Amino acid sequence: MTLPSGVHVRIVGTGLIGTSLGLALSRTGALVSLDDPSTTASALARDLGAGVLAAEVTAAPAVVVVAAPPDAVAAVVARELAAWPEAVVTDVASVKLAVLEEVSALGGDLRRYVGSHPMAGRERSGAIAAQADLFEGRSWVVAPGPEAGEAATAAVRDLALAVGAAPTRMTPGAHDAAVAAVSHVPQVAASLVAARLRDLPDSAVALAGQGLRDVTRIAASDPMMWTPILAGNAPALRVVLEQLAADLHDVVQAVRQLDDASAASAGSGGGPATAGAAGGAGRGSRAVLARAVASGNAGHARIPGKHGAAPTAYATVTVLVPDEPGALGRLLHDVGEADINLEDLHLEHGIGAPVGLAELAVLPAAAEPLTTALLQRGWRVHD
Amino acid sequence: MTLPSGVHVRIVGTGLIGTSLGLALSRTGALVSLDDPSTTASALARDLGAGVLAAEVTAAPAVVVVAAPPDAVAAVVARELAAWPEAVVTDVASVKLAVLEEVSALGGDLRRYVGSHPMAGRERSGAIAAQADLFEGRSWVVAPGPEAGEAATAAVRDLALAVGAAPTRMTPGAHDAAVAAVSHVPQVAASLVAARLRDLPDSAVALAGQGLRDVTRIAASDPMMWTPILAGNAPALRVVLEQLAADLHDVVQAVRQLDDASAASAGSGGGPATAGAAGGAGRGSRAVLARAVASGNAGHARIPGKHGAAPTAYATVTVLVPDEPGALGRLLHDVGEADINLEDLHLEHGIGAPVGLAELAVLPAAAEPLTTALLQRGWRVHD
Repeated sequence: MTLPSGVHVRIVGTGLIGTSLGLALSRTGALVSLDDPSTTASALARDLGAGVLAAEVTAAPAVVVVAAPPDAVAAVVARELAAWPEAVVTDVASVKLAVLEEVSALGGDLRRYVGSHPMAGRERSGAIAAQADLFEGRSWVVAPGPEAGEAATAAVRDLALAVGAAPTRMTPGAHDAAVAAVSHVPQVAASLVAARLRDLPDSAVALAGQGLRDVTRIAASDPMMWTPILAGNAPALRVVLEQLAADLHDVVQAVRQLDDASAASAGSGGGPATAGAAGGAGRGSRAVLARAVASGNAGHARIPGKHGAAPTAYATVTVLVPDEPGALGRLLHDVGEADINLEDLHLEHGIGAPVGLAELAVLPAAAEPLTTALLQRGWRVHD
Repeated sequence: MTLPSGVHVRIVGTGLIGTSLGLALSRTGALVSLDDPSTTASALARDLGAGVLAAEVTAAPAVVVVAAPPDAVAAVVARELAAWPEAVVTDVASVKLAVLEEVSALGGDLRRYVGSHPMAGRERSGAIAAQADLFEGRSWVVAPGPEAGEAATAAVRDLALAVGAAPTRMTPGAHDAAVAAVSHVPQVAASLVAARLRDLPDSAVALAGQGLRDVTRIAASDPMMWTPILAGNAPALRVVLEQLAADLHDVVQAVRQLDDASAASAGSGGGPATAGAAGGAGRGSRAVLARAVASGNAGHARIPGKHGAAPTAYATVTVLVPDEPGALGRLLHDVGEADINLEDLHLEHGIGAPVGLAELAVLPAAAEPLTTALLQRGWRVHD
């Protein structure tokens, strides 16, 4: 809430992000003006309470937020910089270096342009899906270019703070490299793993467990949303994807050698396949596989816990939950009664049985009291 | 519970799976005898209630379950087939064709050997982590070879039913191809994506969102457990990994072309980077990216819903949850009061704010009543 009271923020593009931002800023007392190439879209955002129509405001904005589709962002930023010579202009595109370079090529005033990227989104899009609290508790990357002024950068930071987000300052290049690794490459990997399921028999996909569900959850994402994001971050994405492809190549080579060794062993008079694969070239290949999984351990351990805190090794308490309305609610009600804070929760469903498994992640010191409390209340607990 | 009352089941290998099976079968009234190369391990399983020591039983077993480490399985199966000429012998290794071939090479009686694979496991291992209900509601693949007898196959199916699992009959080759796609390749992909995080700056991994957490959750798995599984399934794993690598190669090529096009455009006098990438070769490259994400959509849609039912498109109701003990429990208590059955639940945590987002997945028809009920009870709901 550090924006000056009554400050005029102009929002160009009233989709999900622009409209949500308008809703959030209007709550803080800012004057929000809304513009969109589609007058229907800006009128809808106005009707939802995101602000007033730009045509109704004569004052110049202090801050302009460009929330246009990725392909259009840079041109709109350049136009807004020219139209409002005193305003700070930011955008919310999920790629930063390409936008900065294009704004520069278009002759935009780079002292007043500070790109940003709120780490918020939804499966749904458009103003109708907008939420005033969309940014609450989320990171909001503020990525000033080398020529950006400090006051302009501070204004964008204050905008993020005003809507409850946590601003994080990075260079545009560092931002793009970061999202390539933590967002874009995971999306590509999830899509490619899920694509391998297309031609499986039903009996094979029926063996899907929670691991597959987790790995492929984001594979349900919209190709029309992701194609411009991946294309717009080609330089940074290329670096991480090439490393991933090289690592995968090593694993494929190791698996080929193990397959060839076991086939040769089977062909040479029926020696045991696994014994054949375990010797000679097989040992080196197994080491490649072990290293790949161990490297994954090391990378996984770096992912922060909730609220950006250092990772904590949670203890897991597993409980059998009948598949009926309210069962999970009763369980978590009982967890609450025990005065224990859940850090995370996974549901796991088997095939063909009317029970689920709830995996309750808690701080290690809470696992024992939680187990005792749940057993006392009649739950079937695996500690 | 279709095993004959008092039937003698011999379990060889008293780790997590063997001991859990002993606990479950003992409950059904079966006589369970326990054997393990480590007499400490078998005594521990006995003390936990999984059965009696094999040395104390003189009667021959009707069924032998080999729950030995993957590398040792085939040799133990062959030895048990020879030692008990009337018994049906199964194993629980997660790869089936290599074991069958090795048992055959060792001269085992293939009419009485029926490999199987319970789709159950835990992060923890050893008898001390055993659970009598480990198999409840899980798939249990029964994978007879071409020479296996029908009565032997039925005995293994009945064993799975007796412990609450859902038996699924597949050929050993079909099993191995299925787990390569739904389990082993997802593990490799998760490990390789997580490995890319090792060398990132802290500020970059701090941008990790729920997508990355989901994709990499299983990257925390034990390399010592996974190396023999991946190596043992080399023939089937090779096929799926090579397809994955080919798909990844196409994506890398597309991203390279987009990067080269944008660099050339920037170099040729500062034309807009995204405009340059959008034309000519850029269009074909974008189509490759869009196809990759769309293929992932198609594969993801094939994953069955819970209990193996046909996939259902659930509606998601998102609720802001304060980060305090009992808050999630109160929420799900209220969900239960509304008489609505949760299909799935995800928790999402932002950085730096004391709230979480609970995403409640429900049948589409239940989304509206759930939203109304939660709003009435004072929750902040995003429908």
